[in-house]
Amino acid sequence: MRDLANRLDLCSINTATLGHREKISTVIDAAARHGYGAICPWRRDLQDENVAAIARQIRDARLTVSGYCRSTYFPALTRQELEANIADNIKAVTDAATLGAACFVLVVGSLPEGSRDLTTARAQVEDGVSRLLEHAKKVGIRLALEPLHPMYAGDRSCLNTLQQALDLAEKIEPGSPSLPSLGVAVDVYHVWWDPDLAREITRAGKANRLFGYHVCDWLVPTRDLLTDRGMMGDGVIDLRMIRALMESANYNGPVEVEIFSSLDWWKRPMNDVLAICSERLQTVC
Amino acid sequence: MRDLANRLDLCSINTATLGHREKISTVIDAAARHGYGAICPWRRDLQDENVAAIARQIRDARLTVSGYCRSTYFPALTRQELEANIADNIKAVTDAATLGAACFVLVVGSLPEGSRDLTTARAQVEDGVSRLLEHAKKVGIRLALEPLHPMYAGDRSCLNTLQQALDLAEKIEPGSPSLPSLGVAVDVYHVWWDPDLAREITRAGKANRLFGYHVCDWLVPTRDLLTDRGMMGDGVIDLRMIRALMESANYNGPVEVEIFSSLDWWKRPMNDVLAICSERLQTVC
Repeated sequence: MRDLANRLDLCSINTATLGHREKISTVIDAAARHGYGAICPWRRDLQDENVAAIARQIRDARLTVSGYCRSTYFPALTRQELEANIADNIKAVTDAATLGAACFVLVVGSLPEGSRDLTTARAQVEDGVSRLLEHAKKVGIRLALEPLHPMYAGDRSCLNTLQQALDLAEKIEPGSPSLPSLGVAVDVYHVWWDPDLAREITRAGKANRLFGYHVCDWLVPTRDLLTDRGMMGDGVIDLRMIRALMESANYNGPVEVEIFSSLDWWKRPMNDVLAICSERLQTVC
Repeated sequence: MRDLANRLDLCSINTATLGHREKISTVIDAAARHGYGAICPWRRDLQDENVAAIARQIRDARLTVSGYCRSTYFPALTRQELEANIADNIKAVTDAATLGAACFVLVVGSLPEGSRDLTTARAQVEDGVSRLLEHAKKVGIRLALEPLHPMYAGDRSCLNTLQQALDLAEKIEPGSPSLPSLGVAVDVYHVWWDPDLAREITRAGKANRLFGYHVCDWLVPTRDLLTDRGMMGDGVIDLRMIRALMESANYNGPVEVEIFSSLDWWKRPMNDVLAICSERLQTVC
């Protein structure tokens, strides 16, 4: 397993961790100054920005782009809406290519308002991802399916386990390609509880489908379903164990910090958060 | 599939739905008056009560006991604590027998404070349930493993899917007995998101291990991880679909309402809650 001490170059900061309070150019400079090797921006950071100019700033700061967050949800009540969601994602994939991102992160969505039909939502996701993959291959961007914790099955994702995400990836892109374009992002927050975690990480690694690795922590108690993620070390996730699984499965990409925390970290100064993430990455991850 | 219209005798009220605000004798009378066929009391309802007298009152009211809630969590930091937890559960199983309960519900616990070791917690659960099963068989009580939603993996249950619960049941009580003593309670709140739900309900039914079926609903948004369950029909769970799976798998026991709702239903008068549960059971479940 890699030793992360003094190796912040192996680490990435997901801009959501900083609460989207500063302009992206400020965040890029700060991440580089703290010594991170990579950054993962969100689409909202790039609204009203020149994507090519931001891409240049990131390169000039000697940062790589570990991922680009995230897809518009696919499922919809009408075919027209589904098509609009796919079109929106196609645009985002083009931006991901401009950024030189290692992958475009797919949070696939779930039940449209008024629906209780997970089966249809899952079928629409399969349809949408298949279509998006055609475009992604053309522009050379990998798509990372991110299974979300089952507590988001109502609204944010009908993909809720690593096994389910891998099953979908292998269905859409079959035949064990040596360099697949469809893989998974493993976020400890979503998968730490899974009794099949070791088996599925190993499976994903063998298929070369491990495109991203995100860390934070699970707090007990968790006070909010969406924005009460913990700083690494403050919760109950065995982070070392999961990273060991990832690296045994040949994942050698960045360790990316993604913390949604309206109750705590989003209230703290950006530089403090970057410093504490840095310390925890080197000591407890 | 059974038609529940005018068949409240096929339905059970879990006393947690009423917020444990009234004495158990009051709740028994009210449940019978509303026409429910069964009740599922909690251990806290029976503190400072004569269990045999309560059992008699339930029988006299022509209610059956669909289950008895619930186990003390097994996992512990020391062997001594684990033994104390098992001993406590043995006492509760004896009370379940006095009540004539259809099963004793096992919410197995998870990480003891300070631990991040799910593997050890799961091993302790296996050990504890094995030991408890010996006693349960002696007094003729079935044990129902209730897998809890993965959002409770930190503190309440390291059993988080139906597959995992069935794997454990078959490991502890192998050999496909025709009348197993270790089975599962399927609560829609915990399992509705699971892509393997149909397969695992079918599997449990074939093994005669479906000991209980609990309903409520998943609200979007969910404002609290523990006590914001919805009334059937107010959320996004496809309740009819899941009951169809249960009954296709030969489950013919009661449909039990279990709603934890400090934010809503626990604030309403008991009789209103019983009446609305009754109406929803007959129309949307």
